[in-house]
Amino acid sequence: MRQQDLEQLRKEVDGLNVKILDLINERTSLVKKIGKVKEKQGVNRYDPMREREMLNFLKEYNEGPLPNGILDEIFKGIFMSALEIQKDEEKNALLV
Amino acid sequence: MRQQDLEQLRKEVDGLNVKILDLINERTSLVKKIGKVKEKQGVNRYDPMREREMLNFLKEYNEGPLPNGILDEIFKGIFMSALEIQKDEEKNALLV
Repeated sequence: MRQQDLEQLRKEVDGLNVKILDLINERTSLVKKIGKVKEKQGVNRYDPMREREMLNFLKEYNEGPLPNGILDEIFKGIFMSALEIQKDEEKNALLV
Repeated sequence: MRQQDLEQLRKEVDGLNVKILDLINERTSLVKKIGKVKEKQGVNRYDPMREREMLNFLKEYNEGPLPNGILDEIFKGIFMSALEIQKDEEKNALLV
């Protein structure tokens, strides 16, 4: 495989990065909507049971090459970030 | 918004989780290929400059709602995981 092929592979990685980011943004919008519904219902936003279920489902679905241990870490980061965003927004709302 | 709508939103999140995982797996396969090319070239796999470039590109491209600080954390995790997988495989290769 030559340098040119390496460049091609890198372009493919760049394309995937963008697609992954688009989906994480889409996910973030949905989680914000869910947060608003829960707020109206007076329910706690953070739901460790639901998080556990999502992780278990993904690990069962996963056929690699990503190992489940690393899947766990990445998705915990994605789940956590959605909560962080909501916390920040609440903080900003309090400051207004 | 009713409970039924909440269920619908959750199903959409579940669908996105799977799509994100599929893309991360696709990305992992590509990075493994790149690692093999670099190995043949005798070049170090870890390239902090390339990582910086990818992150800068993504942060410029990003229009939210994901804040760039959290984007940074998630993608550093994704980049790191690709390296971890390669390290594990090398370790296993040594054990064979």
